[in-house]
Amino acid sequence: MGSKDFFALLVSRSVEIIDREGLRRKIASRRSLRVKLGVDPTTPDLHLGHAVPLRMLRSFQDAGHQAVLIIGDFTGQIGDPSGKLAARRQLTASETKANERTYRAQIGTILDLRRTEVRRNSEWFGRMRLAEFLALLAKFPLKSAWEREDFQARLRAGRAVYLHEAMYHVLQAYDSVAVRADVELGSLDQRLNLLAGRELGSRLGRIVQDVVLLPYLIGLDGREKMSKTAGNTINLRDSARDMFGKVMSILDALIANYAALAAWLPPERVRGIERRLKAGENPRDVKIEVAEAVAERYHGAAEARRARSAFLSLFSKRERDVAMPGVTLPRRAYAPLELLVAIHAARSVSDARRLLRGGALEVDGERIVPGGRTVLIRRGSVIRVGKKRFWRVR
Amino acid sequence: MGSKDFFALLVSRSVEIIDREGLRRKIASRRSLRVKLGVDPTTPDLHLGHAVPLRMLRSFQDAGHQAVLIIGDFTGQIGDPSGKLAARRQLTASETKANERTYRAQIGTILDLRRTEVRRNSEWFGRMRLAEFLALLAKFPLKSAWEREDFQARLRAGRAVYLHEAMYHVLQAYDSVAVRADVELGSLDQRLNLLAGRELGSRLGRIVQDVVLLPYLIGLDGREKMSKTAGNTINLRDSARDMFGKVMSILDALIANYAALAAWLPPERVRGIERRLKAGENPRDVKIEVAEAVAERYHGAAEARRARSAFLSLFSKRERDVAMPGVTLPRRAYAPLELLVAIHAARSVSDARRLLRGGALEVDGERIVPGGRTVLIRRGSVIRVGKKRFWRVR
Repeated sequence: MGSKDFFALLVSRSVEIIDREGLRRKIASRRSLRVKLGVDPTTPDLHLGHAVPLRMLRSFQDAGHQAVLIIGDFTGQIGDPSGKLAARRQLTASETKANERTYRAQIGTILDLRRTEVRRNSEWFGRMRLAEFLALLAKFPLKSAWEREDFQARLRAGRAVYLHEAMYHVLQAYDSVAVRADVELGSLDQRLNLLAGRELGSRLGRIVQDVVLLPYLIGLDGREKMSKTAGNTINLRDSARDMFGKVMSILDALIANYAALAAWLPPERVRGIERRLKAGENPRDVKIEVAEAVAERYHGAAEARRARSAFLSLFSKRERDVAMPGVTLPRRAYAPLELLVAIHAARSVSDARRLLRGGALEVDGERIVPGGRTVLIRRGSVIRVGKKRFWRVR
Repeated sequence: MGSKDFFALLVSRSVEIIDREGLRRKIASRRSLRVKLGVDPTTPDLHLGHAVPLRMLRSFQDAGHQAVLIIGDFTGQIGDPSGKLAARRQLTASETKANERTYRAQIGTILDLRRTEVRRNSEWFGRMRLAEFLALLAKFPLKSAWEREDFQARLRAGRAVYLHEAMYHVLQAYDSVAVRADVELGSLDQRLNLLAGRELGSRLGRIVQDVVLLPYLIGLDGREKMSKTAGNTINLRDSARDMFGKVMSILDALIANYAALAAWLPPERVRGIERRLKAGENPRDVKIEVAEAVAERYHGAAEARRARSAFLSLFSKRERDVAMPGVTLPRRAYAPLELLVAIHAARSVSDARRLLRGGALEVDGERIVPGGRTVLIRRGSVIRVGKKRFWRVR
């Protein structure tokens, strides 16, 4: 891909580029750019929301640039306040370390790790003295920390914001200086943090990074950004069958969005999907195609095809669809037993236990085991009990 | 002095005690308390404003308590934002070190340094790691840093506040934890910083310090707190004659205030002075008494008496007072040459230079030398040129 085409791809896949003209020139110079992406090891499971900037980083990599992946093992212990409604519990060093171990394998399904410079920010922050840090703080106005929209939202909601959280953007900014980033990638809610990196570079007379802001992936609930907290994720470690089933449960309005951000289909194919939907093609058929493309990204074509067949044989036969009763349930997470009782699929709690133990419960194509985690119920979720009983959540 | 009398003295000399009942009990326990006072070596000259908490610390010392004096050689490099209208220039380590050398001698005229635990806060902050500091920040709400009245005043005036300044109270608070302070002394504009020390002790489950807030000494301009920035100081290193002359230039309304805070006269003597003024005694006579008491505090009785005689022989003879012309001058700091020209005492600039070189210029009893510092002109200032020419500023 020529540098011109690559820049066009960047533009089409991002929400905002700062500064756009600067980045265009950097890319046209054909110099290998240092492209930074930071991830905090705050959860052991990465999901397709995390994958959006990772895919973009891979695109840079494929265009011959140097990917610099920062594992925020130091900052992860503070917790990025961006977009959060409450102060994050501070993780311990051993928690972040455990999470980090599971990261590389998951990230390796997207990035080429052999060509990636992986750094931990404890490398520089672990030995940083207070005096050095205060000198950094002197470069940042208190006002801009205070006026962050996420902080103000928390304060309006009567929740506290603590001083250490107001340091997060400073630390992330310094990461950029430490690795000499030419470009930083992040999602839209990271805007202030990434701009801080740009400003710090400029104030210290160092490299001034350009900023590529990427769209969010909306979660399975169709409302909130995909996140572990919202419990609306498709995880990188989900099986092909789970991925397929979960994509099938999204709102029709999100199909093109998932085609672009979850399946990471090329822009022209996404536009094709948009056209077909507009022309009146059955959204369900298009969704099946997107679901297969998502599963294929992470599990290969053969697995994706099998996931599709399994889904169709269970849920898609016309007769079943017609016979499927609707059930109205508050959309939230349920314990498996509780769910069986709520839809009146079991005559008693002990009956429900027996059903669970027998593997009779499936939600959106995923088998629910006894003692397993809670199940998120969404509009359109399909609940199966045994071979023949199906409910669709209204 | 009994512990009860000592507590009564504290109450009479302070503006606020937090918590008063707690401190009363601590003092009644007859345990030797650790009493903390912090000073930042941001200027080589201490003045009578600094002396107020130092005198109070001496009173604690005399009552058998342990004085802990903290030289803020680390925090001095940030600059206490309290009550400041602009971000303070950050001092270098060598500047704070140079200032610190002059401190001990000056402080030694008030405190008994042999019985004082003198600490520098670089002792703990110099080796503090970023991670430890962030753990401290997690104990403080962003809101209370933001809402500081001094910060808000600066922001309203369109001036910036930087993040490192919002750390000052955290650092001062940690000083209290580091030295296990039972009590901290400070002036009223230090209220938030001292309360932060109280809160941090409580949040860390350590000693909870009580707080004794002292009144300000108003400067020679009669308006602002005595401070180097306002240029309205009586310095600890001023000669007896300068101290005397400067006190003679204060507004009559401040006489009792100076009796209490500058001369540190016992409360009953201050009350006596208030009564005499109220009864119509000539304020000038009372002021002479207070001026002598101030000079005596720092230079002994003999020197103070000489300063008084010198002042009276120059300025106080009725005939001169009557013959002294008034001059209206904008009240500000003047270069010596400029001043001679402004009052038309010299026929030309070269004439003014000659007068200066000859030692002909005195303001408020202080000889002004050529190339010396600027001279603050106040309402009531007396300017002498040569032996016989006097002007009083209206």
